[in-house]
Amino acid sequence: MKTRSTQYLQAGVDIDKKAALINSVKAKISSTRRPEALAAIGGFGGLFELDLSRYNKPVLVSSIDGVGTKLMVANALDEHRFVGHDIVNHCVNDIAVQGAEPLFFLDYFGTGKLKSPQYENVLASMADACKAQNVTLIGGETAEMPGMYGDDYDLVGCIVGVVEKDKMITGGKIKPGHAVIGMASSGLHTNGYSLARRLLMTDGKASLLEKPALLGGETVGEALLKPHVCYWPAIRDAMQKGLPLDGMAHLTGGGFYDNIPRVLPDGVAVEVRAEVLPVPPVMQLLRAKGNVAPEEMHHVFNMGVGMVWMVPQSAVDAALACCRGAGFNAAVIGRVTEGKKDVTVLF
Amino acid sequence: MKTRSTQYLQAGVDIDKKAALINSVKAKISSTRRPEALAAIGGFGGLFELDLSRYNKPVLVSSIDGVGTKLMVANALDEHRFVGHDIVNHCVNDIAVQGAEPLFFLDYFGTGKLKSPQYENVLASMADACKAQNVTLIGGETAEMPGMYGDDYDLVGCIVGVVEKDKMITGGKIKPGHAVIGMASSGLHTNGYSLARRLLMTDGKASLLEKPALLGGETVGEALLKPHVCYWPAIRDAMQKGLPLDGMAHLTGGGFYDNIPRVLPDGVAVEVRAEVLPVPPVMQLLRAKGNVAPEEMHHVFNMGVGMVWMVPQSAVDAALACCRGAGFNAAVIGRVTEGKKDVTVLF
Repeated sequence: MKTRSTQYLQAGVDIDKKAALINSVKAKISSTRRPEALAAIGGFGGLFELDLSRYNKPVLVSSIDGVGTKLMVANALDEHRFVGHDIVNHCVNDIAVQGAEPLFFLDYFGTGKLKSPQYENVLASMADACKAQNVTLIGGETAEMPGMYGDDYDLVGCIVGVVEKDKMITGGKIKPGHAVIGMASSGLHTNGYSLARRLLMTDGKASLLEKPALLGGETVGEALLKPHVCYWPAIRDAMQKGLPLDGMAHLTGGGFYDNIPRVLPDGVAVEVRAEVLPVPPVMQLLRAKGNVAPEEMHHVFNMGVGMVWMVPQSAVDAALACCRGAGFNAAVIGRVTEGKKDVTVLF
Repeated sequence: MKTRSTQYLQAGVDIDKKAALINSVKAKISSTRRPEALAAIGGFGGLFELDLSRYNKPVLVSSIDGVGTKLMVANALDEHRFVGHDIVNHCVNDIAVQGAEPLFFLDYFGTGKLKSPQYENVLASMADACKAQNVTLIGGETAEMPGMYGDDYDLVGCIVGVVEKDKMITGGKIKPGHAVIGMASSGLHTNGYSLARRLLMTDGKASLLEKPALLGGETVGEALLKPHVCYWPAIRDAMQKGLPLDGMAHLTGGGFYDNIPRVLPDGVAVEVRAEVLPVPPVMQLLRAKGNVAPEEMHHVFNMGVGMVWMVPQSAVDAALACCRGAGFNAAVIGRVTEGKKDVTVLF
């Protein structure tokens, strides 16, 4: 039936090209399959058998997110080999802070026009990131929507994980006196790009190729595209060692101010000291270019801290060892006090 | 900290407006909570406890999808009260054909600029559709991305359901001689809109307000925006009655030709007769306007059949009773033959 999609093709949707592109990344995707993922026979949905020998009361933990306008930076540079890491790692972190082991991931790729090798690079990046965290890339949707996206594409991911109910990390045990440990970020991760683009992408691609002294030889584009870091290996290690991870927050949009309160119980607050961990050069550049107030910098950007753990003082050394053992710079950056679920940043 | 997001606001991202809009739909979203959904304390991810008293070998079934360019029709008419039904029902159908009960749903709303009441209408529509199928709207992401979407928005959904392993519907038992039952669609559902827009939206909004005689008083826009139908109630009923639902296909992009083969085992094929169920008037209009060949019409559009069930002849009457009992027009539209996993449509 070679002629069957002639008019659809004229309308801008190339079903055959889409099938060919998806086929070209199938092996990569298959390489992420965990033993619990069942062969996709009759496959409208992805199939994942839960291993009940491992759980008494399994709680499924799920999250959905997008990469945001970091994609516009990737697009301007035609560099798509890391954005898959961004979305996978972002999603994994979001459920890891509740103690959940990530199991499977689904992606949505929406675009005006499918392009090669852009599409393959994005998919390969997602598959690599999934494989690195032992997550099955179990499903996805590729939508070619002429007229809708201009030259851009959007990338969305959904993660599902599992945690034993009594091991769930809810923040409920956080008490005044607990230490706040910060783990280093690699850069902006996936937040604050609308402001970052406004300050640093004033001249489109040309500004992304600049090498300001502050970046020590890196281009602005390279600094902006550093992939979101995945903290799950450190959390997994700490959980296996039985450390009292009483509360964790993934620092996404809203920084310390909006993310830490999400896990605080009534009657406590948090005080963190700014810049205990190094502020990534790209954020120093943003601060300088925009003359942005310190509070706003800490509201829009992670300022060098991608995740915080709140643990009893007695667990600090062991927790720091888990962070560093997984390759992350980490330090005590603050403490839990009595208060009204708010965050004070000391500058 | 009233001034904290000044520059971010100038960059086009209004964090406070977003929070207010999300707050305004919280009650609607909460109303979808099933007992297994745990309170979102410490909520980075959504929490859903699996009821193990109901399963020996639970298999999680998941799917992700978007609404596609049907959203451009909704946008042209500023009518956003049904697109949530589209994405929820599409996703539920995708896992229901494998026998899975839908449990929870996550949404992604991406836009250049958040608008009220557009946003609330979309979210309310999703919540209503979730509630109708006893699905918890457990998580979501609202992304405001200035410069990325123009005047459009994108809507993505991810569903997770569960099925007992030995009740999973895989298509493996489909045999020559089985009947093919078709269930009526309400219209285009969520597929073929790029071609439909090309043929029917030649003059933007004005063309959507036309009332061609074929539509019997309905406008083109009304016909195009009919929400995707959810077939899960009929499937649930048939499963509860123990009917041999040996294979089912959700007819999305690619129609009979691409979707039925996804569930056929080796050695069989399917023959369906076109137009046993009424072809919705909007598709008659599309055929007339575009002079589209019958094969292509059946490749791009569902042509009045939104789902097919393949059952032994002995189960046909009971299966039809389940379909009709759930409010769907349904009929035997074809049969399974020996063959090479392909579909012949008899015109």
